Amino acid sequence: MTEGEVIRILTEAGQGPGGRVRIGIGDDAAVLRPSPGMDWVVTQDALVEDVHFRRRWMDAESLGWKTMAVSLSDLAAMGAEPRAAFLTLALPEGSDADWVRGLARGVARCLARYGARLAGGDTVRSPDRIFVDGVLMGEVPQEGAIRRDSARVGDRLLVTGYLGGAALGLRLVEGGQNPEEVAAATVTDADREASRRARARLLRPQPRVEAGVAVRHVATAMADLSDGLAGAVTALCEASGVGATLDASHLPVDPAVRTHGPALGLDPVSLAVWGGEDYELLLAVPSGTPERLPRFLGEVRWTEIGEVVGAGEGRTLLRNGVREELGVGYDAFRDG
Amino acid sequence: MTEGEVIRILTEAGQGPGGRVRIGIGDDAAVLRPSPGMDWVVTQDALVEDVHFRRRWMDAESLGWKTMAVSLSDLAAMGAEPRAAFLTLALPEGSDADWVRGLARGVARCLARYGARLAGGDTVRSPDRIFVDGVLMGEVPQEGAIRRDSARVGDRLLVTGYLGGAALGLRLVEGGQNPEEVAAATVTDADREASRRARARLLRPQPRVEAGVAVRHVATAMADLSDGLAGAVTALCEASGVGATLDASHLPVDPAVRTHGPALGLDPVSLAVWGGEDYELLLAVPSGTPERLPRFLGEVRWTEIGEVVGAGEGRTLLRNGVREELGVGYDAFRDG
Repeated sequence: MTEGEVIRILTEAGQGPGGRVRIGIGDDAAVLRPSPGMDWVVTQDALVEDVHFRRRWMDAESLGWKTMAVSLSDLAAMGAEPRAAFLTLALPEGSDADWVRGLARGVARCLARYGARLAGGDTVRSPDRIFVDGVLMGEVPQEGAIRRDSARVGDRLLVTGYLGGAALGLRLVEGGQNPEEVAAATVTDADREASRRARARLLRPQPRVEAGVAVRHVATAMADLSDGLAGAVTALCEASGVGATLDASHLPVDPAVRTHGPALGLDPVSLAVWGGEDYELLLAVPSGTPERLPRFLGEVRWTEIGEVVGAGEGRTLLRNGVREELGVGYDAFRDG
Repeated sequence: MTEGEVIRILTEAGQGPGGRVRIGIGDDAAVLRPSPGMDWVVTQDALVEDVHFRRRWMDAESLGWKTMAVSLSDLAAMGAEPRAAFLTLALPEGSDADWVRGLARGVARCLARYGARLAGGDTVRSPDRIFVDGVLMGEVPQEGAIRRDSARVGDRLLVTGYLGGAALGLRLVEGGQNPEEVAAATVTDADREASRRARARLLRPQPRVEAGVAVRHVATAMADLSDGLAGAVTALCEASGVGATLDASHLPVDPAVRTHGPALGLDPVSLAVWGGEDYELLLAVPSGTPERLPRFLGEVRWTEIGEVVGAGEGRTLLRNGVREELGVGYDAFRDG
C-alpha cells in the first residue's frame, strides 16, 4: 500500500471530538489549544519488531493498543489527563491493508478509552521490521505534575494492581507455547482464565490514568512500572536521593504468576519485582496517608509494599527475614 | 553501550535554558508551560537507515541535525516558533559512543540554532538498522497558524530559496561518487563550491523558521517542500480545492543544479519541480502582496513562481510554451 492509503486509514482513526485538537492530521503539523492554567505533559515510546514484540504473537490491534498504552502510562505517572497522540509507523513494503486497519483500530480504541485523540504522525517505509513510535500529550494543572524526585524519608510506598503478570505473559508467548495450549494443560477454569489474563497484561496493558490523576494531591512522588517494580523503585530513589525497603510478603503478586510461575520454573516474587511491563504505578505518600487512599483510588486496587528510607540504607527487599539488594530494573535497551 | 549511557549523552544535549521546558529528560514525561494566548504546533518525522539515508554518506552529526531540521521545517510551514523537541533513537547493539555523541551534537546544534530544546524521547535497541524519529513542538498565536487549505483563486505562489539542490545532492552521494571527487572533476572553484553546497542541502537542511514566522500575517496558505515543489503544490491545492499554474522560466533553480545536472544527465527543471527535501516554503499570498514581501522576508530570498487558479484548470507547469501536468510529489513511502 502507498503512504497515502496508510494516512487515510490513520486519518479515520483520528476522527472525533475533543483532545484540544484544533488542526489534526492533514496539514504540515497539528495545532493544539492549551487549557488555561494547565501545563502540557509529553512522552514518547517506541516498539520495535523482534526487540519488543514478534508478529507471531502480537496481533495488529494489540500492537496499536499497546503503542498508545505505554505512553499513557507515563502520563499517568505524572498525574496528567491525556489529550492528543501522535504516531510514527514504519512499515515494510507490501504491508497488508487489513493489518494497518487493525493497528489503527487498536490505536483509536485505546485513545478513546482514555480520552485522547490521534492528531498526527509520520508514515515511512522500513526495509524489513515494523517500527512504531507513539507520542502522548496530556495536561496537568500548572506545578501539579507529580515528579520522581520528591519522595521523602518516611513516605510509604504503594503500587496499584498486581505484579508480574506481563512478565509471565512474555514467557508464555516467547516459549512458543500457544496460550490456548497452556490454558488447556491447566487444571481448572480459574487457571485457564489466569493464563489468558497474563497474556492480556502483556498485549493490552491498562494504564492507570484515572488513578494517576486521582492521587495528584496525595502522592509526593510517582513512577510507572514499565521497567518493572525494581526499575521504578530505582528511578524514584535515585531521583529523590533516598533508599527504599520493600517487604516481599506484601507484594501483590499476580494470581496467574502464583499459579503458573512455579510450573514453568519461575519464582513468582522475582517476576513481580524484576519482570517488566506491568504498567502499574509506584507511589510514595506521606506516612498516614494509606488509610485515606480508598477515597482517591476508588475501585483501583492498591497495596502498601514498603517505605522510603535514607539513601545510606540502599534499596532492599526483605524476604523470609533475608535482605536482598533490589538492583536495577531490566534494561530494555540490552534485553529487549 | 547501554540505554543509560545513551540517555546520559542525550540528557547533556538537552541542557540549557528556555524552550518552555519545566521538566526535561529524566522523569516519566516532560512538562512544558504554554505561553498565554498561544497554540501548540506539533509534528513528527522519522528517518530510517537505507530508506532515507545510508551510513556510508550520512555522518552522525548530520543525521542528528537533519532529524530535527525536517520537523522544524513543518513548524515553519505553520508559522510557528520552535520550543521543544523529542527524539526516539533506535540503535543496533554495539553502537559506537562517539557516533551517538555526534548525533547528539547535531541535534543540540540544530535546536540551539532555531531556539528549541531537547526535552525527552526514547532510546531502544534495533535489530540492525538505525531509526530516528523526531518530534518538534512550537507555538503560534491562537488562530494564527497558517494552514494549507486556505489558498484562494488569484493568490500569487512564491517559494523561498533555491530548488533542486537536495535532489542533486542525493544523486551525487547515492551514485557512490565521493563529493570531493565530483568537486575535483569540475572546472572552476565556483563549481566545486556549488557541488559541496548541494550535498549540504541534503545533509544539513536549513529550515525557513524565521521566514515562516515573518509571513504569518501575509500568507493565505503555506506548505513546506519536504516532498518537493510538486508535492507542496499538490498538498496546498488539494486541501484548498484550487488549481495552480507555475512558470518554469521563473523557478529559482539551484545554481549547482544548473551546473552539474546536465553533466549527470539530469534535467535541472525536473530536479527543481519533482526532487524532494529542499525544505523551502511554498506560500500563497494575495495578489499585490509580493511587492511588499521584502519587508517581511528580510534577507531570505523568495521568488514568485506562479498563481492559484480554479480547480478545473488543474495543476500545470508552463515550459517553453507547453503546459505539463504537475502530477504529485514523490511518495516517500514508495521511493524512500
